[in-house]
Amino acid sequence: MWNRMLDGMLTKLIGVGGLSVRYPDGQLRTYGPDPDRVAVTLHDPALPRLILTNPDLAVGEGYMNGTLTIEGDDLRGFMALMLRNRGAGNSHWAITLNGMLRRLVRRARQYNPVGRAQENVAHHYDLSAQLYDLFLDPDKQYSCAYFRTPDDTLEQAQEQKKHHIARKLLIQPGMRVLDIGCGWGGMGLTLARDYGAQVVGVTLSTEQHKIATARARDAGLADRVDFRLSDYRALTERFDRIVSVGMFEHVGVPHYREYFNHVRSLLAEDGVALIHTIGRSDPPGATSPWVMKYIFPGGYVPALSETMQAVEKERLVATDIEVWRQHYAETLKHWHDRFVVNEAKAAALYDERFCRMWRYYLVASEMTFRHHSQVVFQLQLTRRQDAVPLTREYLYSTK
Amino acid sequence: MWNRMLDGMLTKLIGVGGLSVRYPDGQLRTYGPDPDRVAVTLHDPALPRLILTNPDLAVGEGYMNGTLTIEGDDLRGFMALMLRNRGAGNSHWAITLNGMLRRLVRRARQYNPVGRAQENVAHHYDLSAQLYDLFLDPDKQYSCAYFRTPDDTLEQAQEQKKHHIARKLLIQPGMRVLDIGCGWGGMGLTLARDYGAQVVGVTLSTEQHKIATARARDAGLADRVDFRLSDYRALTERFDRIVSVGMFEHVGVPHYREYFNHVRSLLAEDGVALIHTIGRSDPPGATSPWVMKYIFPGGYVPALSETMQAVEKERLVATDIEVWRQHYAETLKHWHDRFVVNEAKAAALYDERFCRMWRYYLVASEMTFRHHSQVVFQLQLTRRQDAVPLTREYLYSTK
Repeated sequence: MWNRMLDGMLTKLIGVGGLSVRYPDGQLRTYGPDPDRVAVTLHDPALPRLILTNPDLAVGEGYMNGTLTIEGDDLRGFMALMLRNRGAGNSHWAITLNGMLRRLVRRARQYNPVGRAQENVAHHYDLSAQLYDLFLDPDKQYSCAYFRTPDDTLEQAQEQKKHHIARKLLIQPGMRVLDIGCGWGGMGLTLARDYGAQVVGVTLSTEQHKIATARARDAGLADRVDFRLSDYRALTERFDRIVSVGMFEHVGVPHYREYFNHVRSLLAEDGVALIHTIGRSDPPGATSPWVMKYIFPGGYVPALSETMQAVEKERLVATDIEVWRQHYAETLKHWHDRFVVNEAKAAALYDERFCRMWRYYLVASEMTFRHHSQVVFQLQLTRRQDAVPLTREYLYSTK
Repeated sequence: MWNRMLDGMLTKLIGVGGLSVRYPDGQLRTYGPDPDRVAVTLHDPALPRLILTNPDLAVGEGYMNGTLTIEGDDLRGFMALMLRNRGAGNSHWAITLNGMLRRLVRRARQYNPVGRAQENVAHHYDLSAQLYDLFLDPDKQYSCAYFRTPDDTLEQAQEQKKHHIARKLLIQPGMRVLDIGCGWGGMGLTLARDYGAQVVGVTLSTEQHKIATARARDAGLADRVDFRLSDYRALTERFDRIVSVGMFEHVGVPHYREYFNHVRSLLAEDGVALIHTIGRSDPPGATSPWVMKYIFPGGYVPALSETMQAVEKERLVATDIEVWRQHYAETLKHWHDRFVVNEAKAAALYDERFCRMWRYYLVASEMTFRHHSQVVFQLQLTRRQDAVPLTREYLYSTK
């Protein structure tokens, strides 16, 4: 019965492209007009029922557990097919799938805290650092790169990201810059070395703090970069510039006003802040902020409407809002391809199931950026309208 | 009693700058630390009470009626002083003043429909056209100009505005472009003449339609520009590009979704729209949309949060949001200075009271853009993430 129901649902759903499914009883069924089909096999008789009742969980876990396999392991083709059919008259499935990808991404990112690492924080972050080395660029930029052309290398694009942000910050030598969520220190080191900034970077990760501090020392920048193991809300100083890259996604809607309130009070009267965050171009999620906070703590992709609500109320002026489309898709593709090359090393750190989950995370994320509603917002914020130049030409003038 | 109360209120209010007030009873009082004072005289014994109970109405009407005069007619200095003191511990007055300026601007703009013109629409628009000639540039651009430097002339800046928008629209020759709220046709004519576009412009003003059509004919562009006396909601065609400059301010919050719904359905799948509107960087107005709609029909300055709410729900993608600061202050200063030169002609068309009101409108508007929270938003909107290039370099590449 469940097989027939899933068959009926897929027949309705797949309006473009092609899919074949081999059911657990050995039956092969095809869907969609394209004879070049993504071929899925369901190995567990329970899967059709699970997929119908909770598609996001069932498909993701099926893939991780190896009870759902894809011919040629063509995860990208499978995800793209699903997203291309998202609007095909079945909005319930579309919403579910969107939710699936969103939740999967969050769950994947939180794998380490939830998993084995809980018993030993230091060991966990050691593993994490090694894991990130397997797919990030050498500067360890764990956020969207800026591709001036699709052919840029990941290293180029990550460099360009940092310098594009530096321009938006209008940094003069000697300025005090705060980096909220400084990660492994790449942004702060660049602002100190290339722009003469005096940087304070804060992170809550002991391992990131250790690595960032060592990098500053090795680069001879220890007198100009001060990485602190601290919550940004504990700071009381004033800064000429504030930068925050890939941290706002972890703030959560109920804390948006608190976040921007601190940005404002930490910022000099004529200061400039640049907030770089994943965003969604569709409306705020139907899932309640409570669920976001307590079920998926610290993870929510904001819409501009809800972000600006907090910005306006905290009396910050948005002086420019850039929307990066496709850049994160390219970034994630690079990460995926590097991860695949190093998958044996990742399996040695974790296990095969982890590797499948990680790839699922990277591909699902890429596809939501490439074919669905996810983008990156760069919000340039000030306390005063006239803190930045009259036009945006200064961002593009010396290419 | 009212004199003493107003005196007490002004003593508290004026924390910076300097103000002197000669009361109706001849008493002179000074406020604020600056000995270089804006000197106001109240000629009507009723004014102190009126100002205390309804400051926006009383100050504006007092100025229009000549019962409140300013030494040297220094309206700009007076407005700037009030705005500078808006945050000085008296938020009630600040809110009131802000409301005053907002409402005044709306009221001023609606002077003609409400006034003598009601009995004869044609006559009214004849007068309007002559009035606008007294302060606009020759292309009759009645919206914010784009100053690459503060020294640009108004003519340069209005030209630059049109070309900046044209770049954002990524127009190719032969593309079908819709101009919603085409005014006297300047934008449409430029897009046809300089970019080879096939333009449809809609306006609800018969006089604007007549003038725009005549301009198209005189420029030999009648085959490429089709100005229509029509509501944009009556259109059923599809357009490659949509531009709407200075029209969204008249839509009203309750109609935002309807507006963006039409923009979406009128736009080709790979189309680009550019919405240019006055905006506010503070939160949505405390005044209810109902009041906005029914007391001040067709006039509301949107916050980005409420605008984006509608954009997101109507499934449009904001691919870039530029925020112009100070540009409208410069534009309004030019308009004011031209109007003053031509004030005798305006007085011949209307009367002295109208001229004072018009100057009050221009100066109050300038000051809210220069010293308060008003800006201009340019929203570039698409149906698909990839309808515009990867970066914004195309806007600045061939300067």
